[in-house]
Amino acid sequence: MRNDGSPRVVIVGAGFGGLTAARRIARLPVQLTLIDRRNHHTFQPLLYQVATAGLSPGEIAAPIRSILRGHSNVEVLLGEVVEFDLARKQVITNDRELDYDFLIIASGATHAYFGHEDWEPYAPGLKSIEDALEIRRRVLLAFELAERRKKVAGTVELPLQFVVIGGGPTGVELAGTLAEIAHHAMSHEFRNFEPSESKILLIEGGPRVLATYSEELSRKAEAQLHRLGVEVRTSQMVTKIEPGAVWVSGERIPSAVILWAAGVAASTLGRKLGVPVDRAGRVLVEPDLSIPGHNEVFVIGDLAALNDANGKPLPGVAPVAIQQGDWVAETIARDLKKQPRRPFHYRDKGSLATIGRAAAVAQIGKFELSGYFAWLAWLFIHIFFLIGFRNRILVMIQWAWSYLTYERGARLITGSDELTGWTQSQEIHDPSPSELHSR
Amino acid sequence: MRNDGSPRVVIVGAGFGGLTAARRIARLPVQLTLIDRRNHHTFQPLLYQVATAGLSPGEIAAPIRSILRGHSNVEVLLGEVVEFDLARKQVITNDRELDYDFLIIASGATHAYFGHEDWEPYAPGLKSIEDALEIRRRVLLAFELAERRKKVAGTVELPLQFVVIGGGPTGVELAGTLAEIAHHAMSHEFRNFEPSESKILLIEGGPRVLATYSEELSRKAEAQLHRLGVEVRTSQMVTKIEPGAVWVSGERIPSAVILWAAGVAASTLGRKLGVPVDRAGRVLVEPDLSIPGHNEVFVIGDLAALNDANGKPLPGVAPVAIQQGDWVAETIARDLKKQPRRPFHYRDKGSLATIGRAAAVAQIGKFELSGYFAWLAWLFIHIFFLIGFRNRILVMIQWAWSYLTYERGARLITGSDELTGWTQSQEIHDPSPSELHSR
Repeated sequence: MRNDGSPRVVIVGAGFGGLTAARRIARLPVQLTLIDRRNHHTFQPLLYQVATAGLSPGEIAAPIRSILRGHSNVEVLLGEVVEFDLARKQVITNDRELDYDFLIIASGATHAYFGHEDWEPYAPGLKSIEDALEIRRRVLLAFELAERRKKVAGTVELPLQFVVIGGGPTGVELAGTLAEIAHHAMSHEFRNFEPSESKILLIEGGPRVLATYSEELSRKAEAQLHRLGVEVRTSQMVTKIEPGAVWVSGERIPSAVILWAAGVAASTLGRKLGVPVDRAGRVLVEPDLSIPGHNEVFVIGDLAALNDANGKPLPGVAPVAIQQGDWVAETIARDLKKQPRRPFHYRDKGSLATIGRAAAVAQIGKFELSGYFAWLAWLFIHIFFLIGFRNRILVMIQWAWSYLTYERGARLITGSDELTGWTQSQEIHDPSPSELHSR
Repeated sequence: MRNDGSPRVVIVGAGFGGLTAARRIARLPVQLTLIDRRNHHTFQPLLYQVATAGLSPGEIAAPIRSILRGHSNVEVLLGEVVEFDLARKQVITNDRELDYDFLIIASGATHAYFGHEDWEPYAPGLKSIEDALEIRRRVLLAFELAERRKKVAGTVELPLQFVVIGGGPTGVELAGTLAEIAHHAMSHEFRNFEPSESKILLIEGGPRVLATYSEELSRKAEAQLHRLGVEVRTSQMVTKIEPGAVWVSGERIPSAVILWAAGVAASTLGRKLGVPVDRAGRVLVEPDLSIPGHNEVFVIGDLAALNDANGKPLPGVAPVAIQQGDWVAETIARDLKKQPRRPFHYRDKGSLATIGRAAAVAQIGKFELSGYFAWLAWLFIHIFFLIGFRNRILVMIQWAWSYLTYERGARLITGSDELTGWTQSQEIHDPSPSELHSR
């Protein structure tokens, strides 16, 4: 792209915030560069469905440059940002420097283990397509390995145990869907064990699941989880994770699969700006979403820390990122027209969390909803916001099919070191005879 | 599964041959074990569409145990066969021995480099979902890297070069589809180079492409390839492959992506039976598809070498494997009823090869067809034989969508060591300035 003298805007990250900003800013008289480490935008709210074999990666992702194809003033770069030079107004990537007049940083968040990074190999988190495929591989292999398990004379066989750590929306979705898979999708397919006897355990450190919802909705969500066959333990801390087992409040729980949904930390790029960040690494932005001392640099989405009108921190959810992306685009448009800036205000249109088949909770202002109708609302809203007409049709068909048949559409175990991974998993999940006796 | 005294049948491999045999044998009064290294059956004729981002892996694969779920006398095992003990009638896997009364080996073929195994990292072949995803990653990255390529003053920029080695059906499909991607699907998406100027080269060692078809159809296939923008070179030998370049008849061709479709070899299991095999490792079976000296052991599909009534070897295609799977099931049924065996005869219902958008060739007995109608026939036959009603609908929608919009449905670059792989690819495909001058 040639430099034509018009203002240069650089956006880092093509998640909900960055992509929303890009689509709007593309219509302004500027040159826009959008840089991301991946070639695709991922629709994160449906990642758990890829992890649980309900959808294929291609159905919840769209190539970034296809989305922005129509705008000749937009350049999309696959690359990794290494540093910022705020004084010289440059973004430094792994292989070049990009000059900017306006910079928008929307690099999001990733899962965090709070000082227990050594737990990650045994309890993977869910933030990317790759994470989702690794979780899918582990879940499907757990069933295959249970089928291959040899009977040991004189021992009691343990049921297949799945453990999800963290009772936020992702943990609740994963636990509910795992229960559906174990108790329905796999029935009649195995000969040497009974998948429907599998146990799904959801562990939450706080006193209730879905803590950002009302107490009433938390209680209903817990009831719906029970109905789906999930055991919920609240106010319990995980003290240790080792290959094939979780320690919870002093008890060792042998587990075939352990999933981590207990926390996120902001992208490390926030700490490279030299401005104050909070404990999670989020940048404390000004009311107009710019950073202190540099009103041409904006931080939006999960990487930004901002309070709402009541002094409560804005949650790390897609609607916040989308509204901030829109708002920054608007601010740049106003700057170009020499109009004064205005502070950002989040309009909370409500929250929805799905739990499993026909189970969800919704909070829209004072209005609360749970069960089947909340679930239907969840379905339609997610189809509506999914990017790409083709993806919407495919996901609708997959969901209709899964609903009618209980089958999962993408039950593939893939990965290059399949057989190595497998042997390891078997060690992880096959309890030793002594363990079996002791229970 | 408990041993109930009924005859035990073991099938190795759940490709077209093994799965067809399993579905039929499941209805006999036997205990059946089907063992495969993967948990899914792959519809190989559409693998090239996964490799070229047209379809998602989940759309051309189905979990083996779902397919056979309805039969309580069937056990599906994820495992790797290591050895056979024909005297004791045992299959030895990586973790157990399986007794059999009848054994069917249908472990297929893989791509072969004929003594040049060191070429594989630079020119991958296409036999599994993993292969297809690796090829997709390389193809999509090649475009991304071309966009990032730095201008070198005083040099001419090379167009993006793709090379497909081997002019059989797979090579022709890959080359035709790559041309469609480069010349249509990617248009208007890049700012620093013109994807439609990419070159696609198909190299065939023999005198014509699609050598198993008539000379007339080969000529038409070549014309259709030209129309799609593929350069075809026949009677040319690849003498060397190195990172980022192919040597063809003494000429060095710098290439962004090199794909290998030049040959297959039979699964190594064939050589473990202690019976004669041909040069490609295929087992020389008796007319009833059993092996010499052991009429309870059958070999079918790509692993079997058998001539037709005219003394011509049967081709390694799905219809042969399917008919052989059916026929072995029938033979076991006859054995159980103490009826005499009959020799296998292949009924050739014709062959079809697709070349690209609205381009294909078909040979049905003496009847030949090419172009749009051959392509429509190809579409319908492949939808019809695809396993799973859900997959059929999804593939139909993807195809209709791609046909109307020229877009590809699954343009994701995934893989855990994304950025490492990328740097390496860039070295591979960025021509040095001296190279640029020399052309």
